[in-house]
Amino acid sequence: MTYCVGLYLDQGLVMLADTRTNAGMDNISCFGKQYVFQRAGERAIVAMTAGNLAVSQAVMNLIQDGLKHPESGEQETIYSVPSMFAAASLVGEAVRRVYRTHGEAMQDQGVSFDVSVLLGGQLKDRTMRLFQVYSAGNFIAATRDTPFLQIGEHKYGKPILDRAVSPDTSLLDGVKLGLISMDSTLRSNLGVGLPLDLMVYPKDSLDLSRCWRIGENDEYFSQLRASWSDALRQAYRTLPNPPYPL
Amino acid sequence: MTYCVGLYLDQGLVMLADTRTNAGMDNISCFGKQYVFQRAGERAIVAMTAGNLAVSQAVMNLIQDGLKHPESGEQETIYSVPSMFAAASLVGEAVRRVYRTHGEAMQDQGVSFDVSVLLGGQLKDRTMRLFQVYSAGNFIAATRDTPFLQIGEHKYGKPILDRAVSPDTSLLDGVKLGLISMDSTLRSNLGVGLPLDLMVYPKDSLDLSRCWRIGENDEYFSQLRASWSDALRQAYRTLPNPPYPL
Repeated sequence: MTYCVGLYLDQGLVMLADTRTNAGMDNISCFGKQYVFQRAGERAIVAMTAGNLAVSQAVMNLIQDGLKHPESGEQETIYSVPSMFAAASLVGEAVRRVYRTHGEAMQDQGVSFDVSVLLGGQLKDRTMRLFQVYSAGNFIAATRDTPFLQIGEHKYGKPILDRAVSPDTSLLDGVKLGLISMDSTLRSNLGVGLPLDLMVYPKDSLDLSRCWRIGENDEYFSQLRASWSDALRQAYRTLPNPPYPL
Repeated sequence: MTYCVGLYLDQGLVMLADTRTNAGMDNISCFGKQYVFQRAGERAIVAMTAGNLAVSQAVMNLIQDGLKHPESGEQETIYSVPSMFAAASLVGEAVRRVYRTHGEAMQDQGVSFDVSVLLGGQLKDRTMRLFQVYSAGNFIAATRDTPFLQIGEHKYGKPILDRAVSPDTSLLDGVKLGLISMDSTLRSNLGVGLPLDLMVYPKDSLDLSRCWRIGENDEYFSQLRASWSDALRQAYRTLPNPPYPL
């Protein structure tokens, strides 16, 4: 299992991924699911993946090695595509390519072809975007109406995002909310685990240096988890009592 | 879809169910999923069901009409079983009976045989219990280690229960927490909907009169939903800021 969340805020992007993969409950590993593609001052792209690890790694390799554009026939890579939309199209094309190669054999073995990708970033003088690419290679973009996208085990961590994330949420608050959402997921699904990969991208910066790996001993995250539990317990105590005569 | 939650507290049981059923997104109805079986001063049993409505209604009918006990051969109903354990066994037996009757035909039509039941209550001079019965007719009991059980769309509403429910939670707080958990689910899954059926059973009372139907215009629930959203937003603002240099 996996949980990745991307926030699409006026100030920039917050991209957070766990690192746990499991092939059954008894085969748990740590694999990074956050990939960075950048050229200084020209492009800054972050991808996060969920689903079958062999599929998602193949997709990430293909977009770096390059694929022929289905119409122009030109070779394209994640470093050459002219826009974030073209980048999402390239990821989608790579997903379909992997499906053509491995899909049937996976199906024969009873393994579902399951992959999803969050792709956020910006090219010089272009708009910052955040996309979610599906197993069919099609994709959607985050908008101001729904300023976050999630892949993997998304349900436990959704209620707090539904209530608290809006486009004008600051990057600092976005980091807090992303970590709270992740904490709810970590508590409820053993298939999602530490360490976490956090990337913060300030809009128009073309700079992907604000990234941190958050492990078991991260003092801030430990403190946040404890404080959030306390705050939730306090919060429900402040609510009005039911009027029902018990 | 459905969401039902039962809290197994030292003071008693809190049983909460939504009433929405849907056969596809374009066929949504309201059906009660909370069933009450009582004999004054002798037994007080509440059942809540999730899954295929035809299956769960058939199960609820069978346990009232009666089934032969698989070993003794005697006819048993939910009104004659000698314990809550026997009541859960009867529900399980009814589930298997419905499967034998309809399972194969449902499978032929591509409909999954999917049902689960929360069964809580008490018989005179016996222990109060809360069980969850699965589609195979087997079942588990809530214990002090995990003092709540959920069926249906359980993920959105689980984080607050994980953090705040303990055996010594009062019935009043249990009602609050159940409603908060339901609120998170209502917001995130359109397949779960108002009105709600709430039953509070004080331990050793053998009294099932504390039940309320909570609809769109319920003043307390509206107020609770708004207050909880505010409280959550306040709560995350009080958390320490990330130490990351953004």
